[in-house]
Amino acid sequence: MYIPTYDDMLTAHERIKPFIHRTPIRTSDFLNELTGAQLFFKCENFQEPGAFKVRGATNAVFGLDDEQAKMGVATHSSGNHASCLSYAANRRGIPCNVVMPSTAPQAKKDTVRRYGGQITECEPSTTSREETFAKVQAATGGDFVHPYNDPRVIAGQGTCAKEFVEQTDGLDIVMAPIGGGGMISGTCLTLSNLAPEVQIIAAEPEQADDAYRSFKAGYIIADDAPKTIADGLLVPLKDLTWHFVSKHVTDILTASEDEIIDAMKLTWKHLRIVMEASSAVPLATILKNKDRFAGKRVGIIITGGNVDLDLLPWLK
Amino acid sequence: MYIPTYDDMLTAHERIKPFIHRTPIRTSDFLNELTGAQLFFKCENFQEPGAFKVRGATNAVFGLDDEQAKMGVATHSSGNHASCLSYAANRRGIPCNVVMPSTAPQAKKDTVRRYGGQITECEPSTTSREETFAKVQAATGGDFVHPYNDPRVIAGQGTCAKEFVEQTDGLDIVMAPIGGGGMISGTCLTLSNLAPEVQIIAAEPEQADDAYRSFKAGYIIADDAPKTIADGLLVPLKDLTWHFVSKHVTDILTASEDEIIDAMKLTWKHLRIVMEASSAVPLATILKNKDRFAGKRVGIIITGGNVDLDLLPWLK
Repeated sequence: MYIPTYDDMLTAHERIKPFIHRTPIRTSDFLNELTGAQLFFKCENFQEPGAFKVRGATNAVFGLDDEQAKMGVATHSSGNHASCLSYAANRRGIPCNVVMPSTAPQAKKDTVRRYGGQITECEPSTTSREETFAKVQAATGGDFVHPYNDPRVIAGQGTCAKEFVEQTDGLDIVMAPIGGGGMISGTCLTLSNLAPEVQIIAAEPEQADDAYRSFKAGYIIADDAPKTIADGLLVPLKDLTWHFVSKHVTDILTASEDEIIDAMKLTWKHLRIVMEASSAVPLATILKNKDRFAGKRVGIIITGGNVDLDLLPWLK
Repeated sequence: MYIPTYDDMLTAHERIKPFIHRTPIRTSDFLNELTGAQLFFKCENFQEPGAFKVRGATNAVFGLDDEQAKMGVATHSSGNHASCLSYAANRRGIPCNVVMPSTAPQAKKDTVRRYGGQITECEPSTTSREETFAKVQAATGGDFVHPYNDPRVIAGQGTCAKEFVEQTDGLDIVMAPIGGGGMISGTCLTLSNLAPEVQIIAAEPEQADDAYRSFKAGYIIADDAPKTIADGLLVPLKDLTWHFVSKHVTDILTASEDEIIDAMKLTWKHLRIVMEASSAVPLATILKNKDRFAGKRVGIIITGGNVDLDLLPWLK
């Protein structure tokens, strides 16, 4: 297992800069008053394909040598990694094959296809996903870019925390949602070198709390098919992300489905950004743990914005 | 009638800078491909009270001498000017009285009250609004800050176009929706001095096209109670905004209700921002006049983002 280094992250940032947005930071006096903390939201939903995952995907795609690149890339993903890998492959002009659960939101499937990605559907379980992917990968020969358990991907995701530090005048805490742990691992990689005094707190849906239980138990616990409105957070930790989570994460907090939906609507209303339920989990956990965050400068990574606008969860 | 000058705009910008956001520019490859133009969206919906009108309101409030300021300010508004004037008055710690139509969206009323504004409701017609306001103003003695027909307000709105020019590397066209014409007038004031080669095109709902008809006729035509989903654009031109519109606007284009709603949803989906129907009118007119905009660098002012998230027009 190769553990990506701080230098890998710096190299990634130079490599991907021409293809990604240095996303802006949003703040809201209202949300600051509501929480008692000073909140800084980094809008990765503003990346062209709508999610931070364009960072890791672009690093992997543009790091391939020409010989490898001809065969393209392949992956499995609950959605945004698929869109972002397709986007990156499209920018380089190479093929991209993706395995997606049949239950993935239509908006995410549309985005993959728009960027020229070839979709093969599987059942919405980790087992089915990995079996289907093995077949697709054998047939196409594309380079496997795992959505998070890949050093190139983690080094790419770490570039977000680097920008976050550069764009803010000191943070006490950085938060991100946790599914497979790619963004959190990249954040750990960067902050443990660049700003080791900053706490890293992950946020997870109660109904998909395998990372929380892993963190408390001290070893990886994986659920096969959890169900939550936060559809970007269905996948379990793997060895590489567990390395970073177990070593550098301060804590993992959880929130209920209703708390996530409330936080999502609050953010849309007061930051006036369109973001996924997954991205609302950090704010949901802050709102139920106000004492812990009072007076703190808290950076929150808004991970994605690919939402089906006809199916908003607070209107169900 | 005092016509605000370019120096008034520069003074306004220095005065209001501590209280407003220098809002970011958003772009979307998807919307560029769809329109054939290169679009730059200035996100005034990201102002703390959710609209560009905080610029003019803040300029008026912080330009008052201490004696005047004690009596506070008063206005009538279909929504965002009321919120923004309340916000500015709150920042200075002075009273703010506003007359709002009973039909104004709840989200806008809530925002006014959150900032300490006192609301008096009127019927949704220009006549009722002006009659009710006369009573309120007589009772409170607050300084009347008209939502657009006020040189302090127009000078404040003009600061947006100044930032837009500074933040982009040359624009061929700047567009904004037109209701009473405050933002368009501020844009005219700034661009006619700073970048006179830039065309200024206003966009208006077909169902509230009094500015369009005025522009074609050569004199102000005012409708009393037009109906459109673009509820920020219900008010007519007045002498001061007519001065700028008749002198500096290149053209006024219109769009239907369905075209506005489609453009609104497209923007939410691809820019991932929450914005009002009024803010979608420029994009709606670009989509129906593609030849005119093909290959052009077009700046669009996203005027506001105070939306009732329970009543989205594409879900009706």
